Amino acid sequence: MMIIMKPNATPEQVEHVIEQVKAAGLNAHLSQGVEATIIGAIGETHNIPTDIFEVLDGVDIVKRITQPFKLASRQFHPENSVFPLDGFTVGGEEIAIIAGPCAVESRSQIIETAQAVKEAGASALRGGVFKPRTSPYSFQGLGEEGLEYLAEARQQTGLPIVAEIMSQIQLDLMVKHVDVLQVGARNMQNFNLLRAIGETQTPVLLKRGLSATIEELLMSAEYILAGGNKQVMLCERGIRTFETTTRNTTDINAIPVLKNLTHLPVILDPSHATGHADYVSAIARAAIAAGADGLIVEVHPDPAHAVSDGKQSLRPEKFAEMVKQVGQIAQIMGRRLASVQKEVQL
Amino acid sequence: MMIIMKPNATPEQVEHVIEQVKAAGLNAHLSQGVEATIIGAIGETHNIPTDIFEVLDGVDIVKRITQPFKLASRQFHPENSVFPLDGFTVGGEEIAIIAGPCAVESRSQIIETAQAVKEAGASALRGGVFKPRTSPYSFQGLGEEGLEYLAEARQQTGLPIVAEIMSQIQLDLMVKHVDVLQVGARNMQNFNLLRAIGETQTPVLLKRGLSATIEELLMSAEYILAGGNKQVMLCERGIRTFETTTRNTTDINAIPVLKNLTHLPVILDPSHATGHADYVSAIARAAIAAGADGLIVEVHPDPAHAVSDGKQSLRPEKFAEMVKQVGQIAQIMGRRLASVQKEVQL
Amino acid sequence: MMIIMKPNATPEQVEHVIEQVKAAGLNAHLSQGVEATIIGAIGETHNIPTDIFEVLDGVDIVKRITQPFKLASRQFHPENSVFPLDGFTVGGEEIAIIAGPCAVESRSQIIETAQAVKEAGASALRGGVFKPRTSPYSFQGLGEEGLEYLAEARQQTGLPIVAEIMSQIQLDLMVKHVDVLQVGARNMQNFNLLRAIGETQTPVLLKRGLSATIEELLMSAEYILAGGNKQVMLCERGIRTFETTTRNTTDINAIPVLKNLTHLPVILDPSHATGHADYVSAIARAAIAAGADGLIVEVHPDPAHAVSDGKQSLRPEKFAEMVKQVGQIAQIMGRRLASVQKEVQL
Amino acid sequence: MMIIMKPNATPEQVEHVIEQVKAAGLNAHLSQGVEATIIGAIGETHNIPTDIFEVLDGVDIVKRITQPFKLASRQFHPENSVFPLDGFTVGGEEIAIIAGPCAVESRSQIIETAQAVKEAGASALRGGVFKPRTSPYSFQGLGEEGLEYLAEARQQTGLPIVAEIMSQIQLDLMVKHVDVLQVGARNMQNFNLLRAIGETQTPVLLKRGLSATIEELLMSAEYILAGGNKQVMLCERGIRTFETTTRNTTDINAIPVLKNLTHLPVILDPSHATGHADYVSAIARAAIAAGADGLIVEVHPDPAHAVSDGKQSLRPEKFAEMVKQVGQIAQIMGRRLASVQKEVQL
Repeated sequence: MMIIMKPNATPEQVEHVIEQVKAAGLNAHLSQGVEATIIGAIGETHNIPTDIFEVLDGVDIVKRITQPFKLASRQFHPENSVFPLDGFTVGGEEIAIIAGPCAVESRSQIIETAQAVKEAGASALRGGVFKPRTSPYSFQGLGEEGLEYLAEARQQTGLPIVAEIMSQIQLDLMVKHVDVLQVGARNMQNFNLLRAIGETQTPVLLKRGLSATIEELLMSAEYILAGGNKQVMLCERGIRTFETTTRNTTDINAIPVLKNLTHLPVILDPSHATGHADYVSAIARAAIAAGADGLIVEVHPDPAHAVSDGKQSLRPEKFAEMVKQVGQIAQIMGRRLASVQKEVQL
Repeated sequence: MMIIMKPNATPEQVEHVIEQVKAAGLNAHLSQGVEATIIGAIGETHNIPTDIFEVLDGVDIVKRITQPFKLASRQFHPENSVFPLDGFTVGGEEIAIIAGPCAVESRSQIIETAQAVKEAGASALRGGVFKPRTSPYSFQGLGEEGLEYLAEARQQTGLPIVAEIMSQIQLDLMVKHVDVLQVGARNMQNFNLLRAIGETQTPVLLKRGLSATIEELLMSAEYILAGGNKQVMLCERGIRTFETTTRNTTDINAIPVLKNLTHLPVILDPSHATGHADYVSAIARAAIAAGADGLIVEVHPDPAHAVSDGKQSLRPEKFAEMVKQVGQIAQIMGRRLASVQKEVQL
Repeated sequence: MMIIMKPNATPEQVEHVIEQVKAAGLNAHLSQGVEATIIGAIGETHNIPTDIFEVLDGVDIVKRITQPFKLASRQFHPENSVFPLDGFTVGGEEIAIIAGPCAVESRSQIIETAQAVKEAGASALRGGVFKPRTSPYSFQGLGEEGLEYLAEARQQTGLPIVAEIMSQIQLDLMVKHVDVLQVGARNMQNFNLLRAIGETQTPVLLKRGLSATIEELLMSAEYILAGGNKQVMLCERGIRTFETTTRNTTDINAIPVLKNLTHLPVILDPSHATGHADYVSAIARAAIAAGADGLIVEVHPDPAHAVSDGKQSLRPEKFAEMVKQVGQIAQIMGRRLASVQKEVQL
Repeated sequence: MMIIMKPNATPEQVEHVIEQVKAAGLNAHLSQGVEATIIGAIGETHNIPTDIFEVLDGVDIVKRITQPFKLASRQFHPENSVFPLDGFTVGGEEIAIIAGPCAVESRSQIIETAQAVKEAGASALRGGVFKPRTSPYSFQGLGEEGLEYLAEARQQTGLPIVAEIMSQIQLDLMVKHVDVLQVGARNMQNFNLLRAIGETQTPVLLKRGLSATIEELLMSAEYILAGGNKQVMLCERGIRTFETTTRNTTDINAIPVLKNLTHLPVILDPSHATGHADYVSAIARAAIAAGADGLIVEVHPDPAHAVSDGKQSLRPEKFAEMVKQVGQIAQIMGRRLASVQKEVQL
């Protein structure tokens, strides 16, 4: 960390900063330039917030040399993290395609969808049972009942289950039933939830917040990693900008940027990132072409009767077409679609 | 709710929409125009999401006539909500000034600050004991120990206590110790937390999320109100935009807009909204001039040694000056600063 | 256009709106619903701003049925616009790759770059001679001298020339020397410039403004089209958002959205959209996978000595690699790279 | 300027950077720290873009010590710039209130409005004759005819005239007729126009672009100042954000920030910043409370028949009320409303 003093900083102020650097358990290295005095703060700086120095009299700016996320950083872990997910691996050569309805609505709906997406080439099944809804009057999910339907869908198709957790109170229940815990955009900085999940060994799909920076996403991943859970996938799902033609703005730049900064797998959600079924396939292709490790896509057998997100859900046949296109792009990228090989228990 | 069909919608599609309107428990009123066919959906529409109709074949757009928040709306509750807060009232003629450090750091720090802000004219004391921090390695708050210090500060100054709750797991503890439950920006859409708080009778200070729209803020208030807790203050604390000179962008427009849309009290946090102590007083004055019902301000006896947010904290003497200026603006607005009259137990 | 009256609008207000609709040269069609009264305004509405009705007493909202851009709209021109560009066509099967330095710096620099990008597969040469720079103290371009160097580069390589015009005062000079007039992001709403360009027959590359909506981009294209110049390419070059890791945020959604709304060719500028040479290839691939008709890329033989934008410029060998990857994606999309077949005059 | 090298930069890279610093006409000062090597680049750095060093091999970041705007900076000009405007001064104790319609529509409209705003306490008259409109089909202003009506309005009321210039082609005409040249948000980075205006001695009102940073606004002012025209007022008029309840988001923070960074007068446009007449007065009060030097407000005698911006225009009686409130806030701020004392020629 470098602490750059203001041009008119007094020797007493410089001295005081040096003391504070030492008080933080770091070594201080003074460098007196012509234009500015710089104090290097050396040691384990990633767990020290810059603001404890920024606030000191005479300090101009404080600049990190090393990133504030350590466990998530590629600097300390150059190889991709690759972890197994019930029949295939995420983060390696295989492209994961997680598909399913926004919400589990009924036993038949989820089983029908699971079979359709499996046939179309999906590698995992998504389906929400606890739904974060803007309005208290909207459908809030089937809860535990929905988890049972998901379990049945897994049994029939062999697809691992991805479902959203909204509160640490749901943790035991969710860990028992699902293969991947999804943390939604609105909970990306629910630090109590992140810490609780970090203490489990269940893989996590961490969605970027609507207006979270890439660094904040990585810091939230760091919460989970710091607890000991190393199986974290990051998910770009569109950010909130001034443009309202689409529901969100896909930050496609985030794909190569994240692949550069972190060793964790990076997937993209073209359904939320666009909000319109018509644009999902184009953005799915773009994501894989940009280097993403997978996709999470909303598919519904009858979007017109979906209780939520029908507008952005693909019909199974359109999803099948998308998978085919994505597979071709994957090949050019030197990769291939993950396929669930495991014996299905009928 | 009005459902506007596409110009080329078929009679079958129109018929199907009408069926769905009825299935949702509403009456349908068909209006065949030259350019477009419109179906009025009449009844208790505030608890029906527009997307269940948007997704139907042949539908162009769906437009609400009444707002989706009902309990928070001024349409149904024209008078200001005014509620007592331990010695004064919020939402009426009095301007509430909540002040204190970002975090409770020690017994002496919070008691010293409480006395200083009391003397300077504050009407309530803020101080975090559970801190939402971007980094898992940063100070996370004193927890229950901090609540005891806050209780002592209240006893010595008579100031009611405002502190942030991060999880429903902390609810019993917080309700026992604090006068106002603060919901932070990052938890504005933590719906489990909102629902839990809605079942208490403790006043709430609900902060707007970094990129939450004004409507989303009101929908989150609706979650609390729907549970039966009517004492909700809304807090503008700056939104995230492209401008980085300041930490956030104060959405000053939100003050008159919220006062127009809702009967709930509206306060502003100039500390987070600017991120710089130098700009806090100007924005505090602007807030009251724009019609805000109060302020929440970070004050620290020694900002250079604050464990968090030191950069945006006022020294007590600068805070006293701010209170004086704000008092003058309040007078022009036909209002006055709240003052805690209650006997202090020494 | 539909004018939806407020629930409590009086018959006099309704009558007055009808009069105003007629005064605007439209027919009015009254439709009295239970929840709301709606007035259809029928006729040539695309050239009538909605606000002349929005401001009338009793009016709630005004909703367009047809888009405000008419000449640019696919509604009125379903087939893609395809136009020739000196040896190849834009908007059809061929993918255009425009490449070159940010600024023309010297005769040798532009000729060397032109040859390098030609060899690597570029179909046109870019190079600025009038540079819009944030600072009045920065290099502002070589002006007319630069145009002569560009002409020589064209003569040697056969590549058509794309260069930015900043003011209508430069129009005659530019039309004489360049094959495509580029309108930069900062001038997207310089309506005098757009109108002047509309009166020429020189093809145009119109860049989206930093914070322009997709609709505003199309309205700016409409200015040019309305003047009689039909050869307009649209260019997504990244928008300004809260994310600062990259220079801008590539709005990849804009590609399929624009291809849906308009018949005009759509290209993407991965250099400005990311601001980092490291991310250019990934975003170039994503653009073509999403359906873009071409790319404009900054290439410099020695980025470390570029007078501007060196950070985001590709070295020729890296550009050649990018072209190869993009060509593979193009093939999957049923397209192919444009190639300049024209005899080069040596 | 400080150039911070990457931890693994080679001695050759350091040497090369030093050479480039010297080549730019600066002195280089090497400072070898433990964590990083820093090269100070000393001299006239404000006219040297940081990117010429950022692109060099081995360079990590480049940080300015002095601001890139020099003439606009308070560092070099600590006292407020105060300049006369036909009967009063801007930037000193007096608060300027510029009012009038969005567009000059007719002789009677502008004269009637001029008299009404004069009576209500305005110190200058605004009125557009060249209108930047999103649509080529919208009313584009009366042009020269409108300037004659403005001249007549000035003659009858004594109010100086503020009108927007859209192109350097209009410069001679505008300088002859108006007292203040307004540069609109869409032209804030029309550098040819700025440079042309810099060569006149007519006062300028420079509006911030929709998504321009505060630094970019100051750099645009620098273009005008560098030409020799020192009479520049800056105008905050709302920025584009994700919030759509209001037309724009008033960046109220910009007021104290600009007053801190620059000596130029700063005014606010509450009409464009909110887009709704209902919110204009609240934001006008807030602006003055935050330290603004003036306001520019849209007033129309009959907003329902305004050809543009009727929605955000105040009726004269509502404007008179706003002026009264603003006058009271001004007094608390130790200031007073400017009044045009000059004899009116009837």
